[in-house]
Amino acid sequence: MNTPISKKINIQKVDKSRIDQVDFDKLVFGNVFSDHMFECDFKDGVWQNPTIKAYGPLTISPAAKVFHYGQAVFEGMKAFKDEEDKVWLFRPDQNAKRINKSAARLAIPEFPEDLFFEALTTLVSMDREWVRKGPGNSLYIRPFVFATQAGVGASPSTEYKFMILMSPAQAYYTGDIQVEIAEHYSRSANGGVGAAKAAGNYAAQFFPTNLARERGFQQIIWTDASTHEYLEEAGTMNVFFRVNDTLLTAPISDRILDGVTRKSVIDLAKRDNIAVEERRVLVSEIVEAAKNGSLKEIFGAGTAAVISPISAFSFQNKTYEIEKQEDSFAAKFKKELTDIQRNLSEDPFGWRFEVV
Amino acid sequence: MNTPISKKINIQKVDKSRIDQVDFDKLVFGNVFSDHMFECDFKDGVWQNPTIKAYGPLTISPAAKVFHYGQAVFEGMKAFKDEEDKVWLFRPDQNAKRINKSAARLAIPEFPEDLFFEALTTLVSMDREWVRKGPGNSLYIRPFVFATQAGVGASPSTEYKFMILMSPAQAYYTGDIQVEIAEHYSRSANGGVGAAKAAGNYAAQFFPTNLARERGFQQIIWTDASTHEYLEEAGTMNVFFRVNDTLLTAPISDRILDGVTRKSVIDLAKRDNIAVEERRVLVSEIVEAAKNGSLKEIFGAGTAAVISPISAFSFQNKTYEIEKQEDSFAAKFKKELTDIQRNLSEDPFGWRFEVV
Repeated sequence: MNTPISKKINIQKVDKSRIDQVDFDKLVFGNVFSDHMFECDFKDGVWQNPTIKAYGPLTISPAAKVFHYGQAVFEGMKAFKDEEDKVWLFRPDQNAKRINKSAARLAIPEFPEDLFFEALTTLVSMDREWVRKGPGNSLYIRPFVFATQAGVGASPSTEYKFMILMSPAQAYYTGDIQVEIAEHYSRSANGGVGAAKAAGNYAAQFFPTNLARERGFQQIIWTDASTHEYLEEAGTMNVFFRVNDTLLTAPISDRILDGVTRKSVIDLAKRDNIAVEERRVLVSEIVEAAKNGSLKEIFGAGTAAVISPISAFSFQNKTYEIEKQEDSFAAKFKKELTDIQRNLSEDPFGWRFEVV
Repeated sequence: MNTPISKKINIQKVDKSRIDQVDFDKLVFGNVFSDHMFECDFKDGVWQNPTIKAYGPLTISPAAKVFHYGQAVFEGMKAFKDEEDKVWLFRPDQNAKRINKSAARLAIPEFPEDLFFEALTTLVSMDREWVRKGPGNSLYIRPFVFATQAGVGASPSTEYKFMILMSPAQAYYTGDIQVEIAEHYSRSANGGVGAAKAAGNYAAQFFPTNLARERGFQQIIWTDASTHEYLEEAGTMNVFFRVNDTLLTAPISDRILDGVTRKSVIDLAKRDNIAVEERRVLVSEIVEAAKNGSLKEIFGAGTAAVISPISAFSFQNKTYEIEKQEDSFAAKFKKELTDIQRNLSEDPFGWRFEVV
C-alpha cells in the first residue's frame, strides 16, 4: 500500500488494522469506523497540529461550547472503489467549499481548503482497504468541526476541532419510502441556518420524524415555516417531483441545503434533455398532479442514499400513492450517478477525483 | 460543612478544593468551574450511575451524535448566599420541568425530576463555599444533556449524558445595552425549536450577533421569521417594552422561550398593579412609541443578567434612544427579584428554595 507522506500532517499509523473484525455484509450505516481519523485544532487564531491517528475517543471539557451552544457543522461524502482497485471521490471540491459556508453561518472559522484536501486524500489512501468494491459499497466520509472552548458564556468559541471520520457503508436499501408533508412542524426559518449543514438542524427534526414514523411514514418533506404551502427538502435529502416529464425542485435558499446530489441530478437532467424547473413548488399543485395522474415520481437526492424513490405521500390525512414508472427518472439518475461515481462510465462533468 | 449523603448518587469528593486558586473579584462569566460536577448516563433505556465527582474532562467518541446532529439541551439557574450563609435557589422546579420540555422536543429522554433535585441540591451543598455573599455574586448552575451514542446515522441517539456544572459569577454589569431589531436574520421558525433551550438555537445567533456588534449593538431583538413585523426575544433574554405605564411582552409560543425571569417579572408587575400585556408586539408600534415619547423603557429578562436595561434600539438604520426613567421599572424589578433571590425580602410567591 502506497501511503502518501505528508509534509504537514503528523501521521500516527496504527500497528494493526481492525478490518478483520468487521463483517462487511452486515454493516449498519454509520456505526463502524475505519482504522484512522484526522483531527486538527483551532487555537490562538490558527489551525494547528493536523494529525492522522487511530480512530478512538476524545478527551474534551464538559464545558466545551459544542455541548451548550451547538456550534458544529459537518459534511457527508463517499469514496468508491472500481474494479481495478482505484479509489474515487465524488465532487470533493463541493464539500470542501460547503463546510466553510456552513462554518461561516455558525461563526466558526473556515478550514483551509488545501489542508481539507490533503487530510482527506491522505486518510482515504491510508484506509483504502476499507473501501469495498461492488454495487452499493462505499466508504462514507464525515468531515466535521465543533467548538471546544471550555466556557458557558453564550458567545462564539475561540477554539475548535476539525475532524474526519470514515465509516464503511453498504447500499442504503430502504426500499421505496413513504413520506409525510409537514403541516405543523418545520425545519428552518427565513434568515435561519437551514442552508447550513449545522448539527442543530438535524436534532430539530428527530421528534417530528418520530411522530411521522408512528403514523407509518419514514420521512417528512418539510414545507416553508411561514405558510406550509411550499415544498422544501426532506432534511437529509433534497426532493424532486416529476410532473409529466418535467422535474420540479425547490430553489436553493437560506432554508434549503445546496445538495451535491441535487445539483448533479440537475446537471444530468439538463444533459439528458429533461426539463428541470428550480422554483417554489406548491403542495397544492403536487396534490392536484397526484389526483389528475400527472405526478409520475417523487424522489429524494442526497449523499447517503444517492436517490430515494418515494412511493407515497401524505397530506391532510390523505395518502397519495404514486404508480411505479417504467421509464423511472429516479432509477435512471441513480444509475447515471453511481456509474460515474464507480468509474463505470465516462465522466463528462469532471466529477470524479482519484485518490492515489 | 454538612454534606448530605445520597442513597442514590455515587459521590467522589475531591481531596483538595481548587477554590484558593480562584480570584472571585476577576471572574469572567462561565469560565471557572467549581470543584465538583454531576453526571448520569442514559443507556439501555435507563438513566444510570448518577455520580458526583471532580470537575474535569470527559472521554467521548468523536462519533457521538451531539457533535454531528446537535442533540443537546440545557438550563441556566443560580444559587445565592444570604448574609447568614444560607444558600438559596430561585424557582428550581421551573428548570427541572423546562429541561424535560426541551428534551422532549429534541427527542431526548426525560430526566427524572426527583433525581434532578437530588443531584442539584447535593452538588450545590458540597460546593457551597463557591457561592459568595454580596450583591451580584452567585453560583451559576448549568444542567445539560447531550447525545453520546457513537454513530453518524441521522437518527436520535440511544445514549445520553446528563450533567450539572457550576460556575461562580459576579454581577453581570454590561451597562445599558444597545440592540438591533432583526430585519433579515432570524432565530426560530414556527413549528421549530425556538421554545426549547436547544444548543443549536444559540450557535445560530452568533454570526448575526457578530454583524450587529460590528455596527455597535450588543444584542439583537429577534422578530418573527415570516414577516419581521413582530418583536420576539433577544436570544438569551425575553424582552419587555414599557409604553407609558404598560408593560408589553411577546406571548410564549413555539418560537419563544418560557423564561423563568420573564414569568417572574409578570407576576411581580401584576402584584405591583402594573398593567402587563402578553401579546404580539409590532415593531411599528414600538417605533411609533419611541417617536411620540410614550416608549419609556425596554429591558431584557433572563437568568444570567436578571434584568438588562436597553438604552437604544436600531431599526431600518435609524437608532432610537430611550431616555432614562426616574421611576424605572427595570430597576424596580431587578431590585425586587434580587431581594427575593438573596433572602433580603419576603417571598410571597414561594420562589426561594433553601439548599441545606
